[in-house]
Amino acid sequence: MNEQASPFHQTSAEAFLQDFHHVASIGATDRGGVERQAATDADRRTRDWFSEFARSRGWSVEVDGIGNVFATVEFVPGAPAILSGSHLDSQPRGGRFDGAYGVLASLHAAAEIQRRVEAGELAPKYNLIVVDWFNEEGSRFAPSIMGSSVFSGLMDRDEILAVRDSGGTTVREALEGIGYLGAARGPQQLAGYAEVHIEQGRILEREGVALGAVDSSWYTQKLDIEILGEQSHTGATAMADRRDALVGASRVTLLVRDICSEYPAEALVSSVGQITVEPNSPIVVNSRVHLVADLRANDPEIVRGARDALLERFRTVAEEERLEIVAKDFDVRPNRYYPREGVELQERVADSLGLGIRRIQTMAGHDSVALNTVTPSVMMFVPSVDGVSHCERELTRDEDLVNGLAALTRVVSEMLTGALDGVPYPGRPAVAVGA
Amino acid sequence: MNEQASPFHQTSAEAFLQDFHHVASIGATDRGGVERQAATDADRRTRDWFSEFARSRGWSVEVDGIGNVFATVEFVPGAPAILSGSHLDSQPRGGRFDGAYGVLASLHAAAEIQRRVEAGELAPKYNLIVVDWFNEEGSRFAPSIMGSSVFSGLMDRDEILAVRDSGGTTVREALEGIGYLGAARGPQQLAGYAEVHIEQGRILEREGVALGAVDSSWYTQKLDIEILGEQSHTGATAMADRRDALVGASRVTLLVRDICSEYPAEALVSSVGQITVEPNSPIVVNSRVHLVADLRANDPEIVRGARDALLERFRTVAEEERLEIVAKDFDVRPNRYYPREGVELQERVADSLGLGIRRIQTMAGHDSVALNTVTPSVMMFVPSVDGVSHCERELTRDEDLVNGLAALTRVVSEMLTGALDGVPYPGRPAVAVGA
Repeated sequence: MNEQASPFHQTSAEAFLQDFHHVASIGATDRGGVERQAATDADRRTRDWFSEFARSRGWSVEVDGIGNVFATVEFVPGAPAILSGSHLDSQPRGGRFDGAYGVLASLHAAAEIQRRVEAGELAPKYNLIVVDWFNEEGSRFAPSIMGSSVFSGLMDRDEILAVRDSGGTTVREALEGIGYLGAARGPQQLAGYAEVHIEQGRILEREGVALGAVDSSWYTQKLDIEILGEQSHTGATAMADRRDALVGASRVTLLVRDICSEYPAEALVSSVGQITVEPNSPIVVNSRVHLVADLRANDPEIVRGARDALLERFRTVAEEERLEIVAKDFDVRPNRYYPREGVELQERVADSLGLGIRRIQTMAGHDSVALNTVTPSVMMFVPSVDGVSHCERELTRDEDLVNGLAALTRVVSEMLTGALDGVPYPGRPAVAVGA
Repeated sequence: MNEQASPFHQTSAEAFLQDFHHVASIGATDRGGVERQAATDADRRTRDWFSEFARSRGWSVEVDGIGNVFATVEFVPGAPAILSGSHLDSQPRGGRFDGAYGVLASLHAAAEIQRRVEAGELAPKYNLIVVDWFNEEGSRFAPSIMGSSVFSGLMDRDEILAVRDSGGTTVREALEGIGYLGAARGPQQLAGYAEVHIEQGRILEREGVALGAVDSSWYTQKLDIEILGEQSHTGATAMADRRDALVGASRVTLLVRDICSEYPAEALVSSVGQITVEPNSPIVVNSRVHLVADLRANDPEIVRGARDALLERFRTVAEEERLEIVAKDFDVRPNRYYPREGVELQERVADSLGLGIRRIQTMAGHDSVALNTVTPSVMMFVPSVDGVSHCERELTRDEDLVNGLAALTRVVSEMLTGALDGVPYPGRPAVAVGA
């Protein structure tokens, strides 16, 4: 990388990469990933690092009542704020880019913007806040996208603080335990939100495009499925007398996967990710299985149609296997559209940096989906090698990381000077500012 | 029940039932079962009760180096012993009859025999030892039939003491923790072993027969199966790019169940009982599943043929789903035959009591299978309502419990006076006495 080829200062790019790879060492696994589930000690250490980065530059740091951490770079006392960020928590044995990249890029974008402002090259009308949202992943505490949803008023803080992990610890106890249950309200006057994230798919890689401007999110829903049979002896009980909940769960898992083949390729994605089996002993026929199925499509009718067909097929399984199967809808998330002006802003910035860009949809949920309900939000993707994510071999190349950092820095700079002022967004106008 | 109808003293029968139902209250679940996995506090409390029952009658109690508890009723100082017993541990949310019935029946049979000896009605040539074998169930610590197998020299004590439960606790630590890791060697001169147990199937109930004289055990084996895929995102990863270990496990589970239909009805029974899934998060495609399959048939060729066919089909699943599947044989247990003379003894006793009896095979493993390798062993079944076991609604009627107690008392009395002296058994003659 040299000054000519890179769209970003070489020294700044190097400092960013150094910090990024340092943070990836916190909670590092032996195969190149990270294990930093929400409100664990590894999560605390990344938060401490984040806070130290901010305080060492004179930025104020505050924590709100759901563990979101805000670092404010004040340019115009009393003015609304542009937020930029993502999340530092990870899946179990997750990748080091998912979330952390967006937070690190935001910190370094803010440092670069602060430098330009102090050099008289930029005159913001808003303040800039870098944010680490609590528990985006939802693996330890469900549901996902927790901190940004509470901040945006989509989830109730008291209900979320009472959510328990599988060991019985509440969100409140876990946040207190790591010293990140704050008393701050967080920023009340918002002028916009920006987030950069890895794609987690392979569209950008396949097309050789540096950036994706996210214009919408897929329609998603989960099914909470309980399967009840009867506990019995794997040896002494006749096959004809068994009511095996794990056999039912296996048929359900395959139905959930196989239904995708009834739609055009990749129009619907589905999976069973979590399964709990009781009593789960080698010589006992299982009596109860609980599992979570995940259905996603751009077209809501595809998700609804697949869901209805699955429920009908579950009834057949229940009859044939003499089981009780109860499936409940939850975590239904409609399509969300990002402001067109934000997409166009990203395209102008990419042009000015000489980077390729395409419009793209997100199949995964992100903090920006929640923020976009309260302030005009911009979501940008960088390529993922092989399209894999939520795993240790998740990878985005340094060059792509730096390209995304450069684009984020310019997008946030434009937003700070009013580029998205007055832009409509699908949120509640009463909460928003920036017009 | 009255003195005429019952083959057992009414007062003794009532005392037995009172004690049996009292012990069923230790670790009782809310649905009529018990939760007394090996070396838990509930297991300790049943052992304390057992020891108190014995000591209060002047019997000596000793614990060996694998947690077996022996209560000796001494009739002939220095003579070999007839053992009678079963196990007090249970499956998770297991039934209150499996194991505990045999121990309680042995205690009350011994008390009745002691009364007869003291009344001059019986003159034993051997001593009588009631035994509670450690960890027959194998749910907390695998494999099952642990205490009696170590006692019989079929498993190595040091290896077994080092076995860990899912929380990392060793057998040694767990036994020390409940105060039941003893220093005794246990009885060294054996003249025979008797055990009464619930059938756990529905043959006796269907035929209306009070007793089953077990003549052999089925051929059984387990498969330890590891399935390796790749962790990825349930939303962002294309279906075509997924390598879902839980999908593979579901196909394997169904193959294991469905193969039974390729053989005559109930000739083969099979099941997947235990499954571990990683990382098991709602929005992550799972990378690793470990599961245990259990195959049982009277004919070893059926088990071997099914096992070979399954391994071939697992290879197809691995190819089609782009997974790695490794299946290993373990816990292979050949058919075992109980001494013909012991079966005939049970038939004579049943006749004398006016009880119906039939010969039967056991599909489940039992402590008597291990003991039968070192001393002539007798195994007797009583009916199970609906044939269900390893579950909370496991049930044997009081009348059937008392019939089994009466038969056990007579069988053990006969064994104490030499009824099985000189009987060959499929064990190692060097360890056995009683000829």
